[in-house]
Amino acid sequence: MKRLDDAISAAGCAAYVAYASSKDADFRYLTQFQVSDPLLYVKRLGEEPGLVVPQMEYARAAAEATAVPVTRAESGYLAYLDEDKEPWKALAHTAAALAGGPVLVPGTLPYRLGRLLEGYGEVVVDTGGAVGAMRAVKTSHELAAIRAAQQATAAAMDLGIAMIRRSSAQGGVLLLDGEVLTSERVKAAMHTYLMGQGCIARETIVACGEESAMPHRQGAGPLRPDEPIVIDLFPCDEATGYYADMSRTVVKGEPSPEIADMHRSVLEAQTLGKSLIRAGVPGADLHAAVVKHFDEQGYESGAQGFVHSLGHGVGLEVHEAPSLSPSGGPLAAGNVVTVEPGLYYAGIGGVRIEDMGAVTAGGFDCYTDYTRDLIL
Amino acid sequence: MKRLDDAISAAGCAAYVAYASSKDADFRYLTQFQVSDPLLYVKRLGEEPGLVVPQMEYARAAAEATAVPVTRAESGYLAYLDEDKEPWKALAHTAAALAGGPVLVPGTLPYRLGRLLEGYGEVVVDTGGAVGAMRAVKTSHELAAIRAAQQATAAAMDLGIAMIRRSSAQGGVLLLDGEVLTSERVKAAMHTYLMGQGCIARETIVACGEESAMPHRQGAGPLRPDEPIVIDLFPCDEATGYYADMSRTVVKGEPSPEIADMHRSVLEAQTLGKSLIRAGVPGADLHAAVVKHFDEQGYESGAQGFVHSLGHGVGLEVHEAPSLSPSGGPLAAGNVVTVEPGLYYAGIGGVRIEDMGAVTAGGFDCYTDYTRDLIL
Repeated sequence: MKRLDDAISAAGCAAYVAYASSKDADFRYLTQFQVSDPLLYVKRLGEEPGLVVPQMEYARAAAEATAVPVTRAESGYLAYLDEDKEPWKALAHTAAALAGGPVLVPGTLPYRLGRLLEGYGEVVVDTGGAVGAMRAVKTSHELAAIRAAQQATAAAMDLGIAMIRRSSAQGGVLLLDGEVLTSERVKAAMHTYLMGQGCIARETIVACGEESAMPHRQGAGPLRPDEPIVIDLFPCDEATGYYADMSRTVVKGEPSPEIADMHRSVLEAQTLGKSLIRAGVPGADLHAAVVKHFDEQGYESGAQGFVHSLGHGVGLEVHEAPSLSPSGGPLAAGNVVTVEPGLYYAGIGGVRIEDMGAVTAGGFDCYTDYTRDLIL
Repeated sequence: MKRLDDAISAAGCAAYVAYASSKDADFRYLTQFQVSDPLLYVKRLGEEPGLVVPQMEYARAAAEATAVPVTRAESGYLAYLDEDKEPWKALAHTAAALAGGPVLVPGTLPYRLGRLLEGYGEVVVDTGGAVGAMRAVKTSHELAAIRAAQQATAAAMDLGIAMIRRSSAQGGVLLLDGEVLTSERVKAAMHTYLMGQGCIARETIVACGEESAMPHRQGAGPLRPDEPIVIDLFPCDEATGYYADMSRTVVKGEPSPEIADMHRSVLEAQTLGKSLIRAGVPGADLHAAVVKHFDEQGYESGAQGFVHSLGHGVGLEVHEAPSLSPSGGPLAAGNVVTVEPGLYYAGIGGVRIEDMGAVTAGGFDCYTDYTRDLIL
């Protein structure tokens, strides 16, 4: 909380005000409270944070949240609602009263609330992203949660890849246990395994052939021999809220020479990227080193080839600070980042290899211990 | 799109501007595109909506989104970024250029973006919630998706309740197949079943005894005989994005007289609520009828007793318009709502029974066909 107080103080404000549900990672980080509907959070400088909750959530919030719950009645909200006749106006009224002075707000505060808050005094946008910066440097407790999620993810990846390895080619598609092996079957098996580990995976990618050339295409239908299959899994551990993130590319059979070359180059790029990571190195430099590597091997970066950034932070969001992209600033010890170079060409296919681990003072503590081999 | 054009036009604006990911239900509704990171959406009056996407998402967006994808380069964003040196500024610059005049924005637009947009012209908040209003009235296609999700949910509920029914009491806890039957075991079985149906359940409630008195307490540990067990399941169908929502309260053994009375009263309240639903009736009247019913039977509404609203809309969010609460306006045919009266007393426990269905011109098309019995 000291860093949030520092931000409030530096902005010349009396309090930090947010309005979000636990779908918002900043909110979950600040409150440790899981809730579907948005709640008002007010942290006055130097005081315990408060959370305005409906009566029905009071006892649960008292038991679960790290902020001090206040009912809507106690907060003044219900009286303001009588007076103002409009929930958003009453919300702004409540926030202003609890804050007691100029407010610092996250850039993501609902615009409607921000505009109404301006009627009560100065509203300063936290352009530095104080909570995001707090979240980017993980505690040992957070690192353990992320490492555990990544271990479950590697086991799920192994299960999916084993299905492809055990399959056989027939009539241009892969068969397993007498049935066509589809993207959906592999996803279902990985998801069911992960659920048993307390992790929920969504939007998982198992994309074969032409579909693999679109980096975020989820993929559907039969998997085919001799074509690249990109698998990208990024489940969330339900209990902790932390994500994992991992990708592999495999071929059952014989890859085209283009795919084999792309895979070799992506593998080298990943090894290079991981070798350069340590606290203090700008994410932009890591991205640039991989762009240079690809360029030297005749692969472009931009509209095709290496079309995304080298990596991103992972935590309560699957994409968060820091960024390993052209705009990425210096890494810090305790950051958790992916290293995921990829190459994508329409008509040929895609290759991506993604590991995740923690940045340390002297290097990279890779949490992903799993083969990067292409051919099954 | 006509209703969005009407809202743009009524506000005297040139375009509607949003910036969100598919975690935002309005965004998913408008674009039908699944994406983790926020994207800029600009709908000019009378024109096709546009979606500004990173290069790596272009091909996928062209294949999947109902808005027309434009790369960041094509949109001008990358040039503005060079000029403005700051992503949020470049984003506002891009939005203003694409809009070409005053903009209508959702109340949830990030405040930082809204403030920057003000530098380019008038920014009008859509206080009427045009997209939310569009979402509240479902098409037959949406109704079918929600009904299918609710059917899977009822089957999962049956599976969970069957585990409790098959259990036996020993030493103050329930045992099933030689092991203690816990909240976690029941949840895991229901979740695994739902996953096989393509549905992801999160924050499911299986709360026993004292925990059942907190309406949103998720519950943990051994389930016990003779105590109320509230089960509340609200999974999301991954493919369609639509939610279901259902609750039951059961007792293995002999409920206390208080719980038996509360259950009878809640059951009557639900039957009453469902019988009064039809297009045109205000949600507030339905809620008030149930408050009156409870009052007549000696149960209060407020800090304890009936502590929440009678129900809520369900769709791409588990809680959306319309509201069956003191502030709820008239229902419309095509709304999907829950009817979920409950009573909660610390020291005694909680009872909630929740069905979901569609509002029709003349009544309520209940999608939940499952026993409401208390005693197993």
